Amino acid sequence: MIIISKDNKIIKQVKYLRTKKGRYEHNLFIVEGARFVDEITGGFNIKYLVFSQTFTQKNETGGYHHEYYIVSDKLFNELSDTFAPQGILAVVEQKQYSVDNLSKGNSFFLIAENIQDPGNLGTLIRTADAAGADAIFLSGNCVDVYNPKVVRATAGSIFHLPVIENNSLDILIGHLKRNGIKIYAAHLKGKKYPYEIDLTENIAILIGNEGNGLSEYVSRKADLLLKIPMLGMAESLNASVAGGILLYEVVRQRINNLC
Amino acid sequence: MIIISKDNKIIKQVKYLRTKKGRYEHNLFIVEGARFVDEITGGFNIKYLVFSQTFTQKNETGGYHHEYYIVSDKLFNELSDTFAPQGILAVVEQKQYSVDNLSKGNSFFLIAENIQDPGNLGTLIRTADAAGADAIFLSGNCVDVYNPKVVRATAGSIFHLPVIENNSLDILIGHLKRNGIKIYAAHLKGKKYPYEIDLTENIAILIGNEGNGLSEYVSRKADLLLKIPMLGMAESLNASVAGGILLYEVVRQRINNLC
Repeated sequence: MIIISKDNKIIKQVKYLRTKKGRYEHNLFIVEGARFVDEITGGFNIKYLVFSQTFTQKNETGGYHHEYYIVSDKLFNELSDTFAPQGILAVVEQKQYSVDNLSKGNSFFLIAENIQDPGNLGTLIRTADAAGADAIFLSGNCVDVYNPKVVRATAGSIFHLPVIENNSLDILIGHLKRNGIKIYAAHLKGKKYPYEIDLTENIAILIGNEGNGLSEYVSRKADLLLKIPMLGMAESLNASVAGGILLYEVVRQRINNLC
Repeated sequence: MIIISKDNKIIKQVKYLRTKKGRYEHNLFIVEGARFVDEITGGFNIKYLVFSQTFTQKNETGGYHHEYYIVSDKLFNELSDTFAPQGILAVVEQKQYSVDNLSKGNSFFLIAENIQDPGNLGTLIRTADAAGADAIFLSGNCVDVYNPKVVRATAGSIFHLPVIENNSLDILIGHLKRNGIKIYAAHLKGKKYPYEIDLTENIAILIGNEGNGLSEYVSRKADLLLKIPMLGMAESLNASVAGGILLYEVVRQRINNLC
């Protein structure tokens, strides 16, 4: 049976999940595209799949062992967030992580304050995954992690790396410090280069908003402000690039330490 | 006099400059927003400014010493590329750089092959500027550098760093090699980490397409393929982040060398 009515309850739910309110009311989110759907890993539960009629005609869907719905191509396009919908999306349950026991060895966390651009947040999650970080903590005012643009920019890393949302950074940083974790913040007014600091210990890297950097309040909570050298005429870096440079300085030091 | 007609030749030209064809036919591009317009530096010539009527009422425009046109708010919105137009844009002459004499000391170039995402290209230009690179070379199939989204993502660095478009990478790499410049490419199949290589010499860093990486052909032209460590489950990095990590490994080594 092919759903063709806008009033169908599945159609209504998926549309509602395109809003932040809907995502957090139902604790669900949307993953779109064959490649991303195939990457949904064990820890995440697919509630159901939605296929466009054309997708089911052109692809073998027998390999998907989940409840599924087929909708008209026209309706699918209304559900989709992309310019050229592939005709497949999954509705997935959000995952709740416990803050404790996240670290597998020497702790390595990323904390993001007030990141507003979905591409930046998704890219930070992807890079933190690649760098082998244990988890990423977000302040309450970041763009929501289940925003489709964030999910897409993570390139699958949202399924790999624990992302803990809605943190009071005050409480979080206090908790981490009491557990022996040093807090190093990217800051244009930093006094030390990251290359001068031992980043092989238990650490968290703190990254601030793309326009304004870290808030004064949170900056003061950090153990040290780190300055990324600015050798040209640019005044600052893109937030996800700044995060990448610091995360990979940690990687460099830890790899060197192993050699 | 306030321009209210769509048929006015200035309106027609600015609209044409929103297309790649228009930009390259006239060798002009658009810079939008007060902050970016104020950052246009000496080497770039402003041909004329366009203000919305509201902008001239709310702002002192006497400080702008250029030919200017005032257009109705409605028309300005049609010219604008942003969601919330500020009411100011500049039409600027494209700048042609000579490939020779770009380097101020030990050469430090970035070469980008087939970068398609405007945000990625703009961010690479911004990061290369911040890292003190001498110039960035683009292959012919990159998104055009005067695309408004690229210009915006450079955050002003398009006015700082020479960007040389439309290179045959074959010819360029040959030319650089003959001038004693080593070509190091970011590559998932690289055998060496960037930390193992002396990057304080004359070098160019080569970054490939966001989806497919570097082409086989260009990869073979590089002196060495460098692998950025992938310690988690992510398969790859965002192209602008990968570029940032390599550019800043160069910075780290050069700073350490100076100490």
